[in-house]
Amino acid sequence: MYPFQDDLYAARNQWYIAAFSRDVGREQLLERWILDEPVVFYRTVAGDAVALEGRCAHRHFPLSKSNLQGDNIQCAYHGFTYDSAGTCVHIPAQEKIPAACRIKAYPLVERWNWLWIWMGDSALADDSMIPDHKEIGLTDPAYISNVVVYNEVACRHQLLHDNLLDLTHISILHSATIGNGSDSVASTPETHEEGDNWAASMRVIKNYPCPEVFTSFLGYRGNIDRTITLKFLMPGLHFGMDEFRKPSLGDQPGELLGRLAIYHGVTPARRHTTHYHFAIARDFAKNEATTDVFNHAMSAVIEEDKVGLTALEEMLVGLDDRRPREVLALSDSHQTRARRIFEKLIKNDQAAVRAVPIVPVAN
Amino acid sequence: MYPFQDDLYAARNQWYIAAFSRDVGREQLLERWILDEPVVFYRTVAGDAVALEGRCAHRHFPLSKSNLQGDNIQCAYHGFTYDSAGTCVHIPAQEKIPAACRIKAYPLVERWNWLWIWMGDSALADDSMIPDHKEIGLTDPAYISNVVVYNEVACRHQLLHDNLLDLTHISILHSATIGNGSDSVASTPETHEEGDNWAASMRVIKNYPCPEVFTSFLGYRGNIDRTITLKFLMPGLHFGMDEFRKPSLGDQPGELLGRLAIYHGVTPARRHTTHYHFAIARDFAKNEATTDVFNHAMSAVIEEDKVGLTALEEMLVGLDDRRPREVLALSDSHQTRARRIFEKLIKNDQAAVRAVPIVPVAN
Amino acid sequence: MYPFQDDLYAARNQWYIAAFSRDVGREQLLERWILDEPVVFYRTVAGDAVALEGRCAHRHFPLSKSNLQGDNIQCAYHGFTYDSAGTCVHIPAQEKIPAACRIKAYPLVERWNWLWIWMGDSALADDSMIPDHKEIGLTDPAYISNVVVYNEVACRHQLLHDNLLDLTHISILHSATIGNGSDSVASTPETHEEGDNWAASMRVIKNYPCPEVFTSFLGYRGNIDRTITLKFLMPGLHFGMDEFRKPSLGDQPGELLGRLAIYHGVTPARRHTTHYHFAIARDFAKNEATTDVFNHAMSAVIEEDKVGLTALEEMLVGLDDRRPREVLALSDSHQTRARRIFEKLIKNDQAAVRAVPIVPVAN
Repeated sequence: MYPFQDDLYAARNQWYIAAFSRDVGREQLLERWILDEPVVFYRTVAGDAVALEGRCAHRHFPLSKSNLQGDNIQCAYHGFTYDSAGTCVHIPAQEKIPAACRIKAYPLVERWNWLWIWMGDSALADDSMIPDHKEIGLTDPAYISNVVVYNEVACRHQLLHDNLLDLTHISILHSATIGNGSDSVASTPETHEEGDNWAASMRVIKNYPCPEVFTSFLGYRGNIDRTITLKFLMPGLHFGMDEFRKPSLGDQPGELLGRLAIYHGVTPARRHTTHYHFAIARDFAKNEATTDVFNHAMSAVIEEDKVGLTALEEMLVGLDDRRPREVLALSDSHQTRARRIFEKLIKNDQAAVRAVPIVPVAN
Repeated sequence: MYPFQDDLYAARNQWYIAAFSRDVGREQLLERWILDEPVVFYRTVAGDAVALEGRCAHRHFPLSKSNLQGDNIQCAYHGFTYDSAGTCVHIPAQEKIPAACRIKAYPLVERWNWLWIWMGDSALADDSMIPDHKEIGLTDPAYISNVVVYNEVACRHQLLHDNLLDLTHISILHSATIGNGSDSVASTPETHEEGDNWAASMRVIKNYPCPEVFTSFLGYRGNIDRTITLKFLMPGLHFGMDEFRKPSLGDQPGELLGRLAIYHGVTPARRHTTHYHFAIARDFAKNEATTDVFNHAMSAVIEEDKVGLTALEEMLVGLDDRRPREVLALSDSHQTRARRIFEKLIKNDQAAVRAVPIVPVAN
Repeated sequence: MYPFQDDLYAARNQWYIAAFSRDVGREQLLERWILDEPVVFYRTVAGDAVALEGRCAHRHFPLSKSNLQGDNIQCAYHGFTYDSAGTCVHIPAQEKIPAACRIKAYPLVERWNWLWIWMGDSALADDSMIPDHKEIGLTDPAYISNVVVYNEVACRHQLLHDNLLDLTHISILHSATIGNGSDSVASTPETHEEGDNWAASMRVIKNYPCPEVFTSFLGYRGNIDRTITLKFLMPGLHFGMDEFRKPSLGDQPGELLGRLAIYHGVTPARRHTTHYHFAIARDFAKNEATTDVFNHAMSAVIEEDKVGLTALEEMLVGLDDRRPREVLALSDSHQTRARRIFEKLIKNDQAAVRAVPIVPVAN
């Protein structure tokens, strides 16, 4: 599907952000489609988050409508009951339970306020593949980190990645908010760097008026030097680092005013919808009040992306199978390289998945 | 389409319940899609119910928007007018009416409060194929019978049949109503019996507390023996018989408290929607007040099925063409055998329909 | 698509009515899909109407969400900016603009209150192909002409043409309004005439009561002779002329009471939607108050067509690919002949379009 090849969708043997911790509990079962599969989430009595296949092995009834019985989940149609490992432990009117009667249990890891899910082969789920949360500032004591907003965006996941891989859009789409009505971001050249499963861009904006949204938080109103880094830790997290400094004097960097760490969790939901978990951390103005004001301001920015990407998806769907040709600009250089790495990741994953003869059990 | 083979839909040369009598009149034309065809219903001046093809032979305008003129129906677009046999009797601006200008008139039989329709070859319509209404209690003077509720359910018709062919769901899906919060139905083994175009299951629940919904109607609060029979008279009616008795003493059946006859009319509407006509008869507490209370209680049960099956249909549609594999339980034995008979019925019908070279006239 | 062959949609190298003048300005950008392509409309500072491809050449963002900068349009995503000829004049963060970076600019001609658009090869756009507005009464000083109503109708464009090519529907679908509850129009035989890209029908209704809707405007209440002409100027305008006279005396035509010119602009939007621009002109009762009352009455008539054609489209879509067979009446003679000419026009256009090897630039 555009902008990828038609047969490329998403890598399965990878970790994705499935939910914020707060969204999974025992009061209400949560259904989320992830990589086009239904998943049901809940917590055990002890508080552990569980992710199971979202439909009963028997007659495919959605398990999000089911009832918790202790740590087990009972299908609300005929009463088939599964434990948190997906093993069927009760079938009405029979004693013996066939081994084939089970649903998938997805590896699920809770770190900071994220629940990370592994949709592929459980045997390959290696949680060292999850980005190091200390390293990216989420659990670094120098920072205060917090959840900002979750949206299910009505666009294919690639559009959200494209958005984050070309920050020139800050000057236009976000002109009324973080773009600050200026073309500072768009007009500053970027550098980039890549690895096997990541791609990063960096730009340094020199000696320009600090965007108004940041002045009060930083307690500073003059010109600044600002370094914007955004690193795509494939396949599901974009990690940004914003550094605000007083203007440099000659070769010396100016005084550090503050650093902002930004997290965009991007997870394919269905073919045309995407889970978007947004969080932020900062090493300045660490009081609660600032968090509220900050989250409010940032939610408005995310809303601009959501509205824009939804309109873009509608356009693409409206064109049906008339695959649009793209015009490349210099500013697409980073996006183009990152797309290539990302597509390769998916291709390799699909090849691996195809190489294993899959004998579905309960599916 | 799941759970059938992809090319199996529904048998045409069969009788189906199209409507309750009260839903067809002269005030408003009724459009119902049946077996994926548009049908328009009305009554003649003399009161006879009529079922005609739901679109004009001329330019396909929906005849449900048309105007009655005595016993004829006048298309609201250009005025082509048809009599109750589907023969065109008026074309604007011309005298001679070509023989080809006609619409299908479907054989329609009014029995008790049902209108039975025949969607296939009229020449084969034999109303002795309609279940005997006296035999099933609808016109038996020992019973008082009444219409309960009509729903168009947003699921393929097979799901409604599956539902009725596995009554273990009473204990779970209907736990808050007739399930009575107990697993009595689910845990009682069933026996079954089949014929060429029917399949029946029976279970006897011994010496258990009478479900609360029935106690006041039966005027009895102790334990009961209850026999539940449900017979699928293919392709469109499930006929149930519930017998309530005082607990048996040794080999002698206990005193009869009352019998309830239950009727589920299931008619394919479109590919993913189904007409569901539900009625009931009883040989006890035959006053009007009981009817109202009873209907109200039963409508709530049907609503539970409607909500559940709609959720199930959404799940199946969400899976697109990924045909789900089923796990069979012992409790599916009856359903599995009945499905086989039902599928054979459809296959034979489709073979017969294909064998006749069809030369459509007005279609 | 029915009623045409499956591969016939609409001729590209033709003029179509895109909008009323009043609907295009600078306050708000207008997006209209025309011939299944997104088009964005605005006016330059000097007031000239502009029609550009409705999506950015870069990442396909809908340009209807963009911002006007003088005569240019700036994409609201990354800021690519185009002039009114579709040439890209600004790309963020780069000086040189590749020649390939452009969007289509559609020839657009403003005549009277219509904006006429040419969706095909610009080189072939010849505005002498647009119907002569003087000739059809729009700019004839004998008439007062005015815009009545615009609707996007949820039906394929062919259904709107079919509607206008068979006026017998006036007696039935418009029975409550201009049909006047009589079959005068339907029962009067019509004559017809055709050319290479037009087809006209005419009927003279003799000595019948003037429809009530016209009596007050004409200031006359007796019987009339009425001549109704409707000419389909393919592919997008039906031009009607209604002449009201006192009844003829022998061979002499009766005294002229007034003439009404009627304009139906029919433009394919998407596959199942159509732009319908309706206007009217009259050579009697030329005061403003009459215009208001007249427009109000005529809008009600158009609404009847809209409701009817939407119901018809739903019926056709409901039948999926089961192509309905038509029954022909004598009254379809004009429609049948006109359809044949119209289909040939589209076939020839499609052949011409295929004959030119198309190398899309920005698309």
